[in-house]
Amino acid sequence: MTSEAAADAFRSLWARLLPLGRDARTGGYRRFALTPADADCRAWFREEALARGLAYEVDRNGNQWAWLAAPAGGEGGKGGGGGGTRGEVVTEGAVVTGSHLDSVPDGGAFDGPLGVVSAFAALDELRARGVTPTRPLAVVNFLDEEGARFGVACLGSRLATGQLDPERARALRDADGMSLADALAAAGLDPAGLGPDEARLARVAAFVELHVEQGRHLADTPHPVGVASAIWPHGRWRFDFRGEANHAGTTRLTDRRDPMLTYATTVLAARKKARQAGALATFGRVEAEPNGVNAVPSLVRGWLDARAADDATLAELVAAVEQAATERGARDGVTVTTSRESFSPPVAFDHRLRDRIAAVLPDAPLLPTGAGHDAGILSQAVPTAMLFVRNPTGVSHAPAETATEDDCLAGVAALSDVLEDLACR
Amino acid sequence: MTSEAAADAFRSLWARLLPLGRDARTGGYRRFALTPADADCRAWFREEALARGLAYEVDRNGNQWAWLAAPAGGEGGKGGGGGGTRGEVVTEGAVVTGSHLDSVPDGGAFDGPLGVVSAFAALDELRARGVTPTRPLAVVNFLDEEGARFGVACLGSRLATGQLDPERARALRDADGMSLADALAAAGLDPAGLGPDEARLARVAAFVELHVEQGRHLADTPHPVGVASAIWPHGRWRFDFRGEANHAGTTRLTDRRDPMLTYATTVLAARKKARQAGALATFGRVEAEPNGVNAVPSLVRGWLDARAADDATLAELVAAVEQAATERGARDGVTVTTSRESFSPPVAFDHRLRDRIAAVLPDAPLLPTGAGHDAGILSQAVPTAMLFVRNPTGVSHAPAETATEDDCLAGVAALSDVLEDLACR
Repeated sequence: MTSEAAADAFRSLWARLLPLGRDARTGGYRRFALTPADADCRAWFREEALARGLAYEVDRNGNQWAWLAAPAGGEGGKGGGGGGTRGEVVTEGAVVTGSHLDSVPDGGAFDGPLGVVSAFAALDELRARGVTPTRPLAVVNFLDEEGARFGVACLGSRLATGQLDPERARALRDADGMSLADALAAAGLDPAGLGPDEARLARVAAFVELHVEQGRHLADTPHPVGVASAIWPHGRWRFDFRGEANHAGTTRLTDRRDPMLTYATTVLAARKKARQAGALATFGRVEAEPNGVNAVPSLVRGWLDARAADDATLAELVAAVEQAATERGARDGVTVTTSRESFSPPVAFDHRLRDRIAAVLPDAPLLPTGAGHDAGILSQAVPTAMLFVRNPTGVSHAPAETATEDDCLAGVAALSDVLEDLACR
Repeated sequence: MTSEAAADAFRSLWARLLPLGRDARTGGYRRFALTPADADCRAWFREEALARGLAYEVDRNGNQWAWLAAPAGGEGGKGGGGGGTRGEVVTEGAVVTGSHLDSVPDGGAFDGPLGVVSAFAALDELRARGVTPTRPLAVVNFLDEEGARFGVACLGSRLATGQLDPERARALRDADGMSLADALAAAGLDPAGLGPDEARLARVAAFVELHVEQGRHLADTPHPVGVASAIWPHGRWRFDFRGEANHAGTTRLTDRRDPMLTYATTVLAARKKARQAGALATFGRVEAEPNGVNAVPSLVRGWLDARAADDATLAELVAAVEQAATERGARDGVTVTTSRESFSPPVAFDHRLRDRIAAVLPDAPLLPTGAGHDAGILSQAVPTAMLFVRNPTGVSHAPAETATEDDCLAGVAALSDVLEDLACR
């Protein structure tokens, strides 16, 4: 159960965040990292932290932290000076919760923000319950989880854990050609500071991320909250189909080298192979050149998002799609080249932490997920767990993404129970 | 045969025009109507006209004219004051030749410009031959034939012949949201002047457009020049495939309503139906929303360009593609709506004019074409013919579009012969 005070806090947190970065036309969000909309969200985070008397800081990778812990005094430097930003606090053996505030293009209100809002509300709930943390507690907002602007997902957590080279990160560019380095500087952050943050992570005993479910596993159950078992391995592959531009009104069909045909065949093959493998494959992004109504394209570029329960199944799926593309390309006179743009290995969340959470939330089903999360990235460095809040339609990454208020408050209660168990006993 | 003087003139005309609006990266042209690149081409036209002592004018629809005819004196007003721009000339019973200077995105150097360059060179050739025109002769450059910027092909000729409502034309917008009216005004043209130009067209006894062939009919023959028999009916249909945006990593395949699948099926169906009908069908332009790598699209929009030898075949083709789209859409949970964005009825060029040209050019094969042209639009108002110059690869609307210099000069000679026959006897 959530106290009325924490429920009110949740509603108030949610209401203040909801209008930021929302597109009036689509109702979706465009909270891309380091844009004005993201800056509004980050200002909200800072204000909510300070309003609760939490110690606010930004780490070297642009992630925001709010600590329920006394300032460190003499001990702040321990651990190698990691972070090195706006004042040190005692954070050894800390329990951290949070998520991210950025969005995909026309994303929903819940993916990310529900975890941050619930984190603040859970701290309010612990206070309302009158329990005293025996460990430091922190709320975190990771930078650029969705990768919508610079093309690399989980930017802040990848940098912190050393899974993304800072030099490569600084050189990433958005669609307008602006580098991440320039975008950081424009937002008042120091691009030279990017990099692994072992000392900070060494102080974290457990990270728990609450997230709206992005499928319908819970929708078919009576349970508002689930616990993550694993994250499927997943990746993005770019397919370049190169043919020959030509006049759509005069070029005989037999004289054409039309890459749109090869692309279309590949889209259908990906779906079929994924179905056969019990996996997921999606072509959600496509670009054509010159993209003229009366021109056979010279180039069609499509991106395959593929996910499966294990590495071998995923590799077989992608190979099968590549083979289908190449075979059809040979018929069409179209060359096909592919490149892997990103890859996330499978994540099995920490078993001890998961078992402890299962003891606290005995009714919560265990669920796998195909979605990547900062929790998946962090799991390589610290014990990590995830809670999922029921999503009645399963829609995610779209304006229709939703969860009922009752389920959200059940999520706050579950997160509070977990934090109380981990940090207050 | 072309005289050495006219051949030199052709080379000189071509060399001055060639660099204008060329993209250094692709080698293709981006001469979109009323852009700086188009303005450069129009300045070239004016300079070439004035250098030859031709009377230069811009008509009410932004088309450029260069007249080999004495100024009118008192007769200029005859015919109802059509044109009404920069001075009147005696132009009754005129023979007009020319084409257009704008391009598709990354188009080739020949589609359009070859007809204008050859027109000027043919006037030079007539002078070199010492023949004296008995009728007025004019070179014309029609505004925005390709429709690359405002989405309506043959803008200048459609307006002049009353096939496009001036109010609708003024409201057309480019991709940046700029209206045609504003673009005309910015180019120093009066948007209020747009509209039918019957008086001007009534003065034209014949229009002959020379054009690079956009296929390989002549490439397989020993003939550098052909004569158009007909233009196939053709049109553009927009297909909107609406599904539901969703997370590519978590939404079960069976829970998806993925419009990319419906689009892909439709692309392949269009190709198959066109092959079966001996027609042409192309999806060259596609857009997805939100077009994110990890999002099932909410919407995929594709444009069908379809052409066939007659109206009935074309209608059956489009209906068959629509049916394939709708059937697959029902399986995918995707709704399909289509709208015809443009349509050009079949054009049978003037038989008397064609026969007369065939007598002048007895070796030139008669060819149909699937491409629209200003000549096709004008054929509804004045006797019209077209000459095609051989294209060794058949490539058009792409940087590789080409014709040999020998074939281009054969085109100038053929056009000169036709003009001499029509205007000098």
